[in-house]
Amino acid sequence: MPFQTLADVRALLAKLPAPDQAAIAAAEARNGQLTKPPGALGRLETLAIWMAGWQGTDKPSAAKPQIAIFAGNHGVTAKGVSAFPAEVTVQMVANFAHGGAAINQLAKAFGARLDVHALELDRPTADFTEAPAMSEFEVIDALRKGYEAVNLEADLFVAGEMGIGNTTAAAAIATALYGGTGWAGRGTGVDDAGLRRKEAAVAAGVERHRAVLDDPLEVLRCLGGREIAAMAGAILGARMARVPVILDGFIACAAAAVLEKAVPGALDHCVAGHQSAEGAHARLLEKLGKSPLLSLGLRLGEGSGAALAIGVLQGAVACHSGMATFAEAGVAAG
Amino acid sequence: MPFQTLADVRALLAKLPAPDQAAIAAAEARNGQLTKPPGALGRLETLAIWMAGWQGTDKPSAAKPQIAIFAGNHGVTAKGVSAFPAEVTVQMVANFAHGGAAINQLAKAFGARLDVHALELDRPTADFTEAPAMSEFEVIDALRKGYEAVNLEADLFVAGEMGIGNTTAAAAIATALYGGTGWAGRGTGVDDAGLRRKEAAVAAGVERHRAVLDDPLEVLRCLGGREIAAMAGAILGARMARVPVILDGFIACAAAAVLEKAVPGALDHCVAGHQSAEGAHARLLEKLGKSPLLSLGLRLGEGSGAALAIGVLQGAVACHSGMATFAEAGVAAG
Repeated sequence: MPFQTLADVRALLAKLPAPDQAAIAAAEARNGQLTKPPGALGRLETLAIWMAGWQGTDKPSAAKPQIAIFAGNHGVTAKGVSAFPAEVTVQMVANFAHGGAAINQLAKAFGARLDVHALELDRPTADFTEAPAMSEFEVIDALRKGYEAVNLEADLFVAGEMGIGNTTAAAAIATALYGGTGWAGRGTGVDDAGLRRKEAAVAAGVERHRAVLDDPLEVLRCLGGREIAAMAGAILGARMARVPVILDGFIACAAAAVLEKAVPGALDHCVAGHQSAEGAHARLLEKLGKSPLLSLGLRLGEGSGAALAIGVLQGAVACHSGMATFAEAGVAAG
Repeated sequence: MPFQTLADVRALLAKLPAPDQAAIAAAEARNGQLTKPPGALGRLETLAIWMAGWQGTDKPSAAKPQIAIFAGNHGVTAKGVSAFPAEVTVQMVANFAHGGAAINQLAKAFGARLDVHALELDRPTADFTEAPAMSEFEVIDALRKGYEAVNLEADLFVAGEMGIGNTTAAAAIATALYGGTGWAGRGTGVDDAGLRRKEAAVAAGVERHRAVLDDPLEVLRCLGGREIAAMAGAILGARMARVPVILDGFIACAAAAVLEKAVPGALDHCVAGHQSAEGAHARLLEKLGKSPLLSLGLRLGEGSGAALAIGVLQGAVACHSGMATFAEAGVAAG
């Protein structure tokens, strides 16, 4: 078992592995020899070199991407924070199982393995405006399910989520970690009154748990949800296995932010897949120092924006690892 | 033969086919029933519906993309406008043939057919600062090679290019079509002195051919190049066959701009694949009214930015055509 307490998680966070500097140097050297003007592949070049560092090879791959979706239910839905009823979480998990959701199509399109983890959907977290969302046992259990969900053979990992009410939990986490207001957004499409209820729930939750705001893992426990904790655990698990990660939207980034707040640099193995249309995602990406690969107005969750970005990384590593060098091709290097 | 004179091309441009309105309506209806909150897939939704209109089906596909690369040589290279010698054009065509270039890897990554058309590389166009780049016979020949390069079975088309000196020709076309200055950029990476030579060549070319600036097809003939004319012909050929097109960077967009200037709406079957790092591409996209799918700092040509965007369209149609409806999945529609 990787950890049994939040103290164990803190210990793990204190010894995160770094990328392979020799592989980075070899990939940079290779990049300089490929048949293209220097820098002409733009960000694809830096992405491929970044992949090389985490995979520990000068010729990285993205042929075995894994998408893990975590689903959870939230007590805070009692406060009327979502446009959809809480039953939709379990209905959508069935839809994932039958291959009918957006993420199923994207996984197929990019050749990704898709795993779905339904996390005690019949036992929602506590309403965080009234109590901590999870006990330490519960948050550890969710973190561990995420940690252990990472396929060690994967060359790229996406954590996605489904959970009616979880933009409210994510907004509460962002508010707790970064302060300020305005972190609550429209989610799946609440109206103005619903948005005001979200804002009130976020403010009440942060106020109730103000004693723990300096401790990111306690913020996760008190304001998060099982799927959010599982995503944090999965991103941590991918780091320990040096599997590069594509971050999805607002909720996935809120989970990731817990790690980055705990240990700056904890997300060095992560790239931002996209900028979501969810109001505060751009602001959260700025806090994380991540520039998104795509900005196409998605706000679905399920890991869908990150899954779409798998194609970008596949293109990047295909070029880097497959192109001829000037010498191989007999092309004048300019 | 589709056309033998520029007058024939003008006649063709006067009768461009429109998208299938019934397919668009059916695709919009389908989109509204899919298991996601309304609009949650953002631009993927409008892209899928746009594809539906051109393909004439409510369930569009992107399983048979075609990339056609056109290569040409330019007399204006005598003016010292490129960081690379003109021999690189033929060397890169050999690299394409041997599978070593970036576009080969991207074609493979997204399952695209790749065709390379080398257009009389041993006979560069005339230096446009001194004479029209092409005769009417030559420009028609190049337009036709492009027109006929489109695979009528393709469900998506990308026109790419290779041609040392062709950012100078593209800048001259943009200057002729839209006026102003500053259309010349760094291309494959010229230094400051090279950039000044490019600017001077563009200004001299536009001045020499000022009598034809009101006629986009004559602008193409006098200032373009064979690969640029072929791309314009291919984009026109795709339109006649109702095959949707992804536009590549500055040079491909200069070719496309000739059609749009000739007949507004001529690029309704085109989407901008990316915004290139070549200085004036963003400005050219604005003139075309196209918002790019990707902006990753590429400036390679070869159709590479558009090829990378094939993945985005494959994701869009995969979701649209593969997802379950609320009724099929038994999910509450909110």
